[in-house]
Amino acid sequence: MFLPKKILEERLLRILAEDLGQGDVTSALIASEGEFAEASVIAKESGIAGGIEESKILLESLGLEAKQETVDGRNFQKNQTIMKICGDPRIILSSERTVLNIISRMSGITTKTAAMVGKLRKAKLKTKVACTRKAAPGLLYFDKKAVVLGGGDTHRLHLDDMILIKNNHITVAGGIKQAVERAKEYASFSRKIEVEVTSVKEALTAASLGVDVIMFDNFRAEEVEKAVQSVRKSGFDRVILEASGGITSENLLSFASTGVDVVSLGELTAHVRGLDVSLKIVKIDNLKKK
Amino acid sequence: MFLPKKILEERLLRILAEDLGQGDVTSALIASEGEFAEASVIAKESGIAGGIEESKILLESLGLEAKQETVDGRNFQKNQTIMKICGDPRIILSSERTVLNIISRMSGITTKTAAMVGKLRKAKLKTKVACTRKAAPGLLYFDKKAVVLGGGDTHRLHLDDMILIKNNHITVAGGIKQAVERAKEYASFSRKIEVEVTSVKEALTAASLGVDVIMFDNFRAEEVEKAVQSVRKSGFDRVILEASGGITSENLLSFASTGVDVVSLGELTAHVRGLDVSLKIVKIDNLKKK
Amino acid sequence: MFLPKKILEERLLRILAEDLGQGDVTSALIASEGEFAEASVIAKESGIAGGIEESKILLESLGLEAKQETVDGRNFQKNQTIMKICGDPRIILSSERTVLNIISRMSGITTKTAAMVGKLRKAKLKTKVACTRKAAPGLLYFDKKAVVLGGGDTHRLHLDDMILIKNNHITVAGGIKQAVERAKEYASFSRKIEVEVTSVKEALTAASLGVDVIMFDNFRAEEVEKAVQSVRKSGFDRVILEASGGITSENLLSFASTGVDVVSLGELTAHVRGLDVSLKIVKIDNLKKK
Amino acid sequence: MFLPKKILEERLLRILAEDLGQGDVTSALIASEGEFAEASVIAKESGIAGGIEESKILLESLGLEAKQETVDGRNFQKNQTIMKICGDPRIILSSERTVLNIISRMSGITTKTAAMVGKLRKAKLKTKVACTRKAAPGLLYFDKKAVVLGGGDTHRLHLDDMILIKNNHITVAGGIKQAVERAKEYASFSRKIEVEVTSVKEALTAASLGVDVIMFDNFRAEEVEKAVQSVRKSGFDRVILEASGGITSENLLSFASTGVDVVSLGELTAHVRGLDVSLKIVKIDNLKKK
Amino acid sequence: MFLPKKILEERLLRILAEDLGQGDVTSALIASEGEFAEASVIAKESGIAGGIEESKILLESLGLEAKQETVDGRNFQKNQTIMKICGDPRIILSSERTVLNIISRMSGITTKTAAMVGKLRKAKLKTKVACTRKAAPGLLYFDKKAVVLGGGDTHRLHLDDMILIKNNHITVAGGIKQAVERAKEYASFSRKIEVEVTSVKEALTAASLGVDVIMFDNFRAEEVEKAVQSVRKSGFDRVILEASGGITSENLLSFASTGVDVVSLGELTAHVRGLDVSLKIVKIDNLKKK
Amino acid sequence: MFLPKKILEERLLRILAEDLGQGDVTSALIASEGEFAEASVIAKESGIAGGIEESKILLESLGLEAKQETVDGRNFQKNQTIMKICGDPRIILSSERTVLNIISRMSGITTKTAAMVGKLRKAKLKTKVACTRKAAPGLLYFDKKAVVLGGGDTHRLHLDDMILIKNNHITVAGGIKQAVERAKEYASFSRKIEVEVTSVKEALTAASLGVDVIMFDNFRAEEVEKAVQSVRKSGFDRVILEASGGITSENLLSFASTGVDVVSLGELTAHVRGLDVSLKIVKIDNLKKK
Repeated sequence: MFLPKKILEERLLRILAEDLGQGDVTSALIASEGEFAEASVIAKESGIAGGIEESKILLESLGLEAKQETVDGRNFQKNQTIMKICGDPRIILSSERTVLNIISRMSGITTKTAAMVGKLRKAKLKTKVACTRKAAPGLLYFDKKAVVLGGGDTHRLHLDDMILIKNNHITVAGGIKQAVERAKEYASFSRKIEVEVTSVKEALTAASLGVDVIMFDNFRAEEVEKAVQSVRKSGFDRVILEASGGITSENLLSFASTGVDVVSLGELTAHVRGLDVSLKIVKIDNLKKK
Repeated sequence: MFLPKKILEERLLRILAEDLGQGDVTSALIASEGEFAEASVIAKESGIAGGIEESKILLESLGLEAKQETVDGRNFQKNQTIMKICGDPRIILSSERTVLNIISRMSGITTKTAAMVGKLRKAKLKTKVACTRKAAPGLLYFDKKAVVLGGGDTHRLHLDDMILIKNNHITVAGGIKQAVERAKEYASFSRKIEVEVTSVKEALTAASLGVDVIMFDNFRAEEVEKAVQSVRKSGFDRVILEASGGITSENLLSFASTGVDVVSLGELTAHVRGLDVSLKIVKIDNLKKK
Repeated sequence: MFLPKKILEERLLRILAEDLGQGDVTSALIASEGEFAEASVIAKESGIAGGIEESKILLESLGLEAKQETVDGRNFQKNQTIMKICGDPRIILSSERTVLNIISRMSGITTKTAAMVGKLRKAKLKTKVACTRKAAPGLLYFDKKAVVLGGGDTHRLHLDDMILIKNNHITVAGGIKQAVERAKEYASFSRKIEVEVTSVKEALTAASLGVDVIMFDNFRAEEVEKAVQSVRKSGFDRVILEASGGITSENLLSFASTGVDVVSLGELTAHVRGLDVSLKIVKIDNLKKK
Repeated sequence: MFLPKKILEERLLRILAEDLGQGDVTSALIASEGEFAEASVIAKESGIAGGIEESKILLESLGLEAKQETVDGRNFQKNQTIMKICGDPRIILSSERTVLNIISRMSGITTKTAAMVGKLRKAKLKTKVACTRKAAPGLLYFDKKAVVLGGGDTHRLHLDDMILIKNNHITVAGGIKQAVERAKEYASFSRKIEVEVTSVKEALTAASLGVDVIMFDNFRAEEVEKAVQSVRKSGFDRVILEASGGITSENLLSFASTGVDVVSLGELTAHVRGLDVSLKIVKIDNLKKK
Repeated sequence: MFLPKKILEERLLRILAEDLGQGDVTSALIASEGEFAEASVIAKESGIAGGIEESKILLESLGLEAKQETVDGRNFQKNQTIMKICGDPRIILSSERTVLNIISRMSGITTKTAAMVGKLRKAKLKTKVACTRKAAPGLLYFDKKAVVLGGGDTHRLHLDDMILIKNNHITVAGGIKQAVERAKEYASFSRKIEVEVTSVKEALTAASLGVDVIMFDNFRAEEVEKAVQSVRKSGFDRVILEASGGITSENLLSFASTGVDVVSLGELTAHVRGLDVSLKIVKIDNLKKK
Repeated sequence: MFLPKKILEERLLRILAEDLGQGDVTSALIASEGEFAEASVIAKESGIAGGIEESKILLESLGLEAKQETVDGRNFQKNQTIMKICGDPRIILSSERTVLNIISRMSGITTKTAAMVGKLRKAKLKTKVACTRKAAPGLLYFDKKAVVLGGGDTHRLHLDDMILIKNNHITVAGGIKQAVERAKEYASFSRKIEVEVTSVKEALTAASLGVDVIMFDNFRAEEVEKAVQSVRKSGFDRVILEASGGITSENLLSFASTGVDVVSLGELTAHVRGLDVSLKIVKIDNLKKK
């Protein structure tokens, strides 16, 4: 999930531009050309960093100096300075909220993901924790990158990278067999094929058709366990098994201990509590007066 | 906060385009030209609708027929159908997640806002409930529109529509007096001037300088109450008073009953729990076979 | 009205791109890689500078060195060099016309605005001189910034920053009372409300409804004077009063001396006489030959 | 100069988007969904129409019905209705200023151009009246189209459509001969070559090198006359002769009667007086109430 | 590989816009408003259709009626009409070349791909024929869609849909083992992992590490055959085997008969011979004269 | 045909962005921050360079160091290094294919054009070799620039730079005379007028109407020769004569020796064989480990 700075920069500037509109009317009045400020981005609660790289790219593209005091994916404590910024105070103030919104949301997702992954690892489970495409509109890239920083799995990045046959596709195709057969025949060899199933019977059908991944959709944890056993007992050793639907931080362990390879949770990116971060101007100089 | 369809359409298509990438590889394999489907968007939990208008605009721009079964701002119940969609199943399936993400996030914000406003109205308080600019990156328009649908106040839409002098501005200007005087002298007559204060003394200074709005930033509720009384007793009847910082659904009433005109909460748009909505294909026809 | 360089750069490059099309066919033939030129931007008539900052941003983004010999908002004389540019002559020649068009239009607006403001200040009047939204299509930002440089007031930057109820809105609402009441009830507390009135009676209605600004639209100067007196005598001390419609440089003083706080003129941005500026290559070197 | 509607639409929507920002806050409050309005665009002074086609394209793309009551290039009288618009009043009010700005500027240019062309035709002169690239930044297309509607010549549309060797190019090339020879050797056969000259001698040099057009730059009218005679007497019958620089509506005839084929004037697009046009809501209905 | 019309339309209009620049100066002069034309797109040589859908989308978005006389992927003969177009002749003429370029290139790719696939099927081989990312710059979508229409496999659509470890990646990682292990550990479960190998030994290493696809890069056909046998004999039944590098229409069969599952050829999209298609106006009417 | 770097950069980044999608998933896994690589772009066959400048601009905009080892338009040999690149290996690997595709296509066109021009010069013919607008969709700029690098003529860059009356235009106008007369009357003096003719008679008509260029469309070589003689004998010395349609590398000389000034060939840009170029990582360092 690597994008060169220049490409990310363009996406970040578009986000900033929405906030700027015809320009920051307050900063224009308060500060004037030739001033120089130093600012700190401070965590107001502990968590795991996300969005530091994106913020640095945005700030540097605006002509500011941005020094990261931590690294994406690493813990920070309450009141810790996570970034220092120097330059024209008008630009710092105009981009402050955009930068904080990026760090806040991404760190919120990273922290939540890491907590879930940590819970499984502590229970000695290797199950992958994946997000879904239930992200904020237009923020698939940023939301999924934050999941990766927290140790999670991106699942599909968007609609072009995997064949994922869901219930509605099965309805359209006229059955799971028809759907999978069409996919097997026409899909590129370069892609995996995953199927969403609603019963053990469908799971076995899918496995026998040679799909790469089977998703147990909206099964209860104990149903997932039985389904996993049925599939494995039937000799389908290599098919990847995923549980999805209704999984939350509360019931995560029960689903993860069913033997599935992956648990996926919409809430990682759809129920987001942005971390509290703030920016403080710590020094101000008028270069012209000197 | 009115944007013509055509302008919204462009923003919505850009959101969809991120999810599509080089195209939906699954739908392309499963459905084929000449098919026709009907689908329902169903609420999986009760709430207040947001994003219905945006979804309709997006779906219609894609050539689908979209009939809204409820109206933005209105209650819906669990399992209620909130929208019906007809047309090419490949387009329905390709836009499904984008549409659901929009409705889910916006309805989540609308529902939360309406709950807060409702709590105040029930307590016979007229205090306005405003959001801030702590939105998801790039989603200021959609997040703030959802707040309006829930009966909330948008506060600033972005950086160009009001002079809002925050702590950092005061630091840069060298004091609250200097900051407000610069703003009074240079700001357009068409804009209000608001100042963030951290003490009663600052509030009185700001009021005497003739600002339009004073924001008590990170005061405890009882401190807000005292500050309101000081300002009003000093004869500043017309200045609008806002409390902000640390206000949550839990302590909302205590802040709102201090006599302030506005309470503003970052969490309305920064801690969002997307409502659970899903799309179901309910009918499928092959036009060519007929 | 502050936009970071990077955001302005994007708008300026789009303007340049229109002029370039598939490229400057003349400069490509005449100059070749490895040449170095120095050029001067020269005022062919006196005026007040506008567009210098924008030109510098554009030129530097193209890889040229641009040194401003004056500052936006300052006077320049006929034949004065206002900017020096160094670098690849092909880039200088390709961007010459775009740079001159920006400086010419913006300086034209700045100069005209400053003349009007100067006339009022000389008559010891503090009345603000505001422009309107009657700008060249797509140039609201640049036109309004030029007005500010000349000491004028931007009025609304665009449609999202103030409630301005005009005649057509009143027609749609069914009356001035209905219109203002809807606005008072639903508008965000962060915005001012202005109403356009066509009679003293309407002005008094608007004032009693608590609007922030009243615009006397297409009144003759003596009518404005009477209206101002009526409003003030009725005790409405704080409402801002604006005269608009039919005001020109000729009758400016008569309107400004009526007691209004603001006079606004469409002609500031709709009747623009670009100042005459030119660019001259003053030195040319072939780096490769050395 | 033909662009399909769909391409123009995109340019026009971008212009509208600047004015809309996050949306028209006034119209959103005043009008509501389900209303229907009729409006007239009325000329407040006489002139020749420009921008009617562009306005119609923009309005229709927004979902409004737009009926033109005149045609671009035709005369209209004071108080004449030049366009009728029907539809959602919120959309009419949100696009009103953009539409009026387009018609105002383009009609201003068309009217001025037609007056100049008319003056020459009345004097039985066939001299072409051309504009230059001294347009408002980013408005080359619209400004030049308005010139065409007034009977003028576009000259270059932008930098890619003709070889025009100006003084600065000659400086860079090291002389008029070197410049023209390079152009003759390397320019595509599909393009004309024009040279700006500052003396009769240079004109004869250019003519003998076989350029297609010679521009007499900043000559006085009597100098142009002599130069024309010298070139023609020397047997250069086919080269097109253009006078440019310092030509205004006042001295137009003296330049045009020198025998040149073309006179070009920066002021056609750089000194623009927008015509006064306004929009009036003439009827309003609430469809839902019926 | 499905994109809704509206999304494709945007890509197609951007292609057209490059050709239009400031507008089609010829069509503007020749045709005038109110005319109506019918045109046929005619194949000047036989082939297999590609780009018909894209052309139809573009033409309809421009307001023309476009009727396809064949379907993408189907054979057409020399002189066959493949599309009929009706509407404003200025729009037909302005978009003619863009439409022909799209059909010509895509049909060229489709025809070439189909010929190769046909050759293999005739020899009773089931080997897939895949293209690579060696497409014309910016045309990955269109080039790969044309390959699919000819019965080929898209391989990766772009860089985000599969892990493909090439020689350079192995150099960076420090060895094939390190590279694959990193990929196995960090890649999403949703993606296949392919490795490029340069020897049988590397192939066996890759297979034993559990990759999904092995690419024999720049092997001679007989080397491929031996490598396939080694891998299969070693019990790696499920790994997909691909031959790539130096494969052309001439030696295709020898590579395809080695037992590999996929042969991939850069030349499908990098050596393109556009099919000869032309557009002829067959009828012209002046609606106004009637 | 000169575009400043910054403008080209934007076009090049858009091409790269298509390939990147949500990011390069392979390079992200293999390389990590803090590594440094050196790479060489190597020609796998001899040819004439094109696209070196574009590649350098793209690579530098991404933050890489790019040193060109040859110059556009110059010969290179098989196995010659034509460019060296240093920097973050993730960025090198993510942009590798885009850079190679640009160099491959442009060098392919440059090499082919140079071969044709060379053949004519060797035969002592001065005939210009021009391309047409039969380019890859959206690549007019790059394809035509490559033709220029090979010594060819661009012909029209797009639709706005010359009046070219083709058969379809003549059909619409109702005859060659009508078409040319309309063009002569309404076209700007700044543009040449070319007409496509299908017989000697039409050629003479066009010449007598004073067009600048006559194109013999789909004439056999001997017919072209007769037509040239007819036109010249009739005293039309200055009209430029072009042969087009059915000209290939095989019959090029026969057409070029007919006396025409220009031969134009669609195949220069429509039948492109991309040259074989590759990129090799030659050194890799981990900066952090040092």
